[in-house]
Amino acid sequence: MIIKNSTLRLKTEGFCHVVNITDEVQSQVNESEIESGNVTVFVVGSTAGITVVEYEPGLVKDLEDLFNKLAPPTRDYHHEQAWHDGNGFSHVRASLLKPSLVVPVVSGKMRLGTWQQIVLLDFDNGPRTREVAVQVMGQ
Amino acid sequence: MIIKNSTLRLKTEGFCHVVNITDEVQSQVNESEIESGNVTVFVVGSTAGITVVEYEPGLVKDLEDLFNKLAPPTRDYHHEQAWHDGNGFSHVRASLLKPSLVVPVVSGKMRLGTWQQIVLLDFDNGPRTREVAVQVMGQ
Amino acid sequence: MIIKNSTLRLKTEGFCHVVNITDEVQSQVNESEIESGNVTVFVVGSTAGITVVEYEPGLVKDLEDLFNKLAPPTRDYHHEQAWHDGNGFSHVRASLLKPSLVVPVVSGKMRLGTWQQIVLLDFDNGPRTREVAVQVMGQ
Repeated sequence: MIIKNSTLRLKTEGFCHVVNITDEVQSQVNESEIESGNVTVFVVGSTAGITVVEYEPGLVKDLEDLFNKLAPPTRDYHHEQAWHDGNGFSHVRASLLKPSLVVPVVSGKMRLGTWQQIVLLDFDNGPRTREVAVQVMGQ
Repeated sequence: MIIKNSTLRLKTEGFCHVVNITDEVQSQVNESEIESGNVTVFVVGSTAGITVVEYEPGLVKDLEDLFNKLAPPTRDYHHEQAWHDGNGFSHVRASLLKPSLVVPVVSGKMRLGTWQQIVLLDFDNGPRTREVAVQVMGQ
Repeated sequence: MIIKNSTLRLKTEGFCHVVNITDEVQSQVNESEIESGNVTVFVVGSTAGITVVEYEPGLVKDLEDLFNKLAPPTRDYHHEQAWHDGNGFSHVRASLLKPSLVVPVVSGKMRLGTWQQIVLLDFDNGPRTREVAVQVMGQ
């Protein structure tokens, strides 16, 4: 059984910045040399999430529109009482989307569709350096 | 350590079609003969998702209503500029719900509640043939 | 390979009750004595979910507000026809948030951020006793 842990470090801009990390994750799968198993992708921190999308400019904007509607930056958030840092909307979006994704690996490849990319969504209200834990487990 | 990969192939109708796949997933757990471990269920493609629900006709309609409200088919989506295929709403719903679910297996059974079924939600805007990767890992 | 299964039993109040279970999950990781692997947290039942949040009183209220907006208790739900128990909103919220979360473990610790706690959200419309399956897998 092989378990391989690594960390991606990414510069993000916040406000629903969508970053395609598919190639970086597949690279970790390749380096692990597993044929069968899975990969867990987990973003460290409470104002970002991981999901999949067909990565093209239109959907990048559509995701931004979706989260602006579900949890607008302009609403009053109780979180403001704790830190006064204006990112209550970032936290609730991240809780809704959640930080992790598990993708099966078969014959050394992730079982993604052709138009199904793994993306980090950074919801914070400014630039960040993000850590994404990538864990490959298998044989 | 046992790792067993299989693929379910399903005919779907789109527009938030809810398909109960619990029995098919449990069958894969049974065939793997693991006693302890977990099962990862992952839908291939960027316009569908996997979750759980008490599978009964009322909640099937309630889920359709929920996603119609969160991401209406009638809104304008930037994705339309890329493909002109009218399914921008399908993509953003799928990104929100996400394609995978991990369920622990104990004593050869998934740790689901009595009224907690595993479902595929197909958000696309027409019939599809879907592939769902099922991966059982354990001992 | 070590696979350790346990069950947390929790008293909850419903209506988006947010319960911080981070310490209980880390305790199971500690007892497993794995150094590298992951932990799957899965709530049994169809009216609750698992996610992460910076656990502080403001965000606890903000999550309640978010789900009250996305799936209000006051809307009519078709689920009411099945059981007449008034918790249609609880079910659709749980399907949206989903019951499981996978967190990588490295050097014996979950890869959580400092302000990133694992929480159970109980969406039901009254007190419950909940079971949360915790499965540690690794070496």
